[in-house]
Amino acid sequence: MKNKGHTTHKAKMEKLKKNVDASISAATIDKGVGILLTGNGKGKSSSAFGMVMRALGYGYKVAVIQFLKGAQSSGEEKFIQDNFPEVLFHQMKTGYTWDTQDRDKDKAAAISSWKVAKKALADKSLHLVVLDELTYMLSFKYLDESEVIQALNNRPQNQSVVITGRGGGKKLKNWADTVSEVRDIKHAFNSQIMARKGVDY
Amino acid sequence: MKNKGHTTHKAKMEKLKKNVDASISAATIDKGVGILLTGNGKGKSSSAFGMVMRALGYGYKVAVIQFLKGAQSSGEEKFIQDNFPEVLFHQMKTGYTWDTQDRDKDKAAAISSWKVAKKALADKSLHLVVLDELTYMLSFKYLDESEVIQALNNRPQNQSVVITGRGGGKKLKNWADTVSEVRDIKHAFNSQIMARKGVDY
Repeated sequence: MKNKGHTTHKAKMEKLKKNVDASISAATIDKGVGILLTGNGKGKSSSAFGMVMRALGYGYKVAVIQFLKGAQSSGEEKFIQDNFPEVLFHQMKTGYTWDTQDRDKDKAAAISSWKVAKKALADKSLHLVVLDELTYMLSFKYLDESEVIQALNNRPQNQSVVITGRGGGKKLKNWADTVSEVRDIKHAFNSQIMARKGVDY
Repeated sequence: MKNKGHTTHKAKMEKLKKNVDASISAATIDKGVGILLTGNGKGKSSSAFGMVMRALGYGYKVAVIQFLKGAQSSGEEKFIQDNFPEVLFHQMKTGYTWDTQDRDKDKAAAISSWKVAKKALADKSLHLVVLDELTYMLSFKYLDESEVIQALNNRPQNQSVVITGRGGGKKLKNWADTVSEVRDIKHAFNSQIMARKGVDY
């Protein structure tokens, strides 16, 4: 005799499978996706680099433009430069704006990095473009929002773009096909645990 | 004459830097971190793989145990197997439970994968252990929660662990040093856009 739990599980899973299959059949648009990873929790940039790993796994071409970051060395930087020098990897290198404390210098650096990004967003050979921490460039008004949105909209149809950073604004959220908000429920830092090499950076 | 905007920015950033520096000085505990990435949004597993990239960037040893996944090929799987065969990479390979519809078979597979995870959690040479989609094994009651928490607590002091999956439960959240909830604000899938190779898988 079959036990009841087993039968119930099977019936539930059959129903779930039906729903999942129906959603998969309904998704028929085959194009690059625009992803915005926002919120104040840990995991936005690392998620972008996980997607870089996926794209590299299939041998696709990738570009990474890091706004803010680059003043200090990081695992992802070392990884890409040591193992995948063919990845277009650009860093603004000014570091966090509270370290430089020089708005004009930061703005000039942002505009110069945006030029690299814009070129990537027009490059048909790129499967994935990561614009890490771009949102801050918009909230600080270092970059012109309409110009950024326009370049994102005009990109090649098969190119996916991942943008990370807190905030992001209404227009960027409208542009994105997928928006995830990473909420900080708890952070090791607040328990006095140091940022971990090979995990946090 | 200096313009006012410039001075205000500098003062604001000086204050921010003071706060940031104070927090950094307060964080003095140097140990592996426990991270739980939960919520229903996109970016949990990719974030875990971004941390794998960081760890590999510094030449650290890594283990990845994927519960649920593995029935279909993925970019992260291909990437690791082709480029970093030294990574301990284990997949449950049964696929999603709504596909197998066989609770007993799935439970046996979960227990067998947990044995691999448990061994990794006792291995001092591992800098980072990823337990991808582990939360479902707990919510389906395929694995014993207290046994899992115990193994996590008893791991080597320098080992970091990243656990992904929706839910996770109170005990796992208590265990974790960092908990991020990835909220689904918007998903391409709901606009009938297909999952993207080299981005979503």
